[in-house]
Amino acid sequence: MQANTTEWSDTEQLVAKEAFEKAYALETSALLDEVRRQSSSISAIDDLWNLHDFLSARRHELDGKYDFNYPMLLITFAGLIKDGWLQFDDLTSLSKDKLAKISALTRL
Amino acid sequence: MQANTTEWSDTEQLVAKEAFEKAYALETSALLDEVRRQSSSISAIDDLWNLHDFLSARRHELDGKYDFNYPMLLITFAGLIKDGWLQFDDLTSLSKDKLAKISALTRL
Repeated sequence: MQANTTEWSDTEQLVAKEAFEKAYALETSALLDEVRRQSSSISAIDDLWNLHDFLSARRHELDGKYDFNYPMLLITFAGLIKDGWLQFDDLTSLSKDKLAKISALTRL
Repeated sequence: MQANTTEWSDTEQLVAKEAFEKAYALETSALLDEVRRQSSSISAIDDLWNLHDFLSARRHELDGKYDFNYPMLLITFAGLIKDGWLQFDDLTSLSKDKLAKISALTRL
């Protein structure tokens, strides 16, 4: 895919890292809120193992999702936008070409 | 080991199961308290992954420890007594031979 081999200017790299870190901070903050909510209603050991299963799945998902990797970054950004952790406004300093590709990817 | 092949009377089986369940209830209740304590101080994602690591280790430990298995039960009971989850008084209906073996095992 063309998007995977696109070059990134210094400015774009900075914008990309900031956007990536912003999305990570938002999503992990939401996860902390969710875990606090679940923790407050734990009353039996099965509830605890359910929380453990939930954390195992979310950790695995986040580890894969937030691997900062330029060849995959347009796809990553499209996913983060679709999931609501990032806005197009966070990426307006990227080239029009990249933004068009991200926009197209969000519609897949 | 002789203790592993000892037979268990119906009464001893009942006592063993009750003691086992009591220890499990006590230890898991203490774990729930510990998790509530840790959860209340989570403020960053690394704290959450530390909690996840802690739960993974404790779950693995408890799964192995609370496998009700007659050939291993004297060793299991000795470990539970050493760790404070069971008292000798919970096992007084067992034969003197079994109690002597459990007592010896607690001193290993």
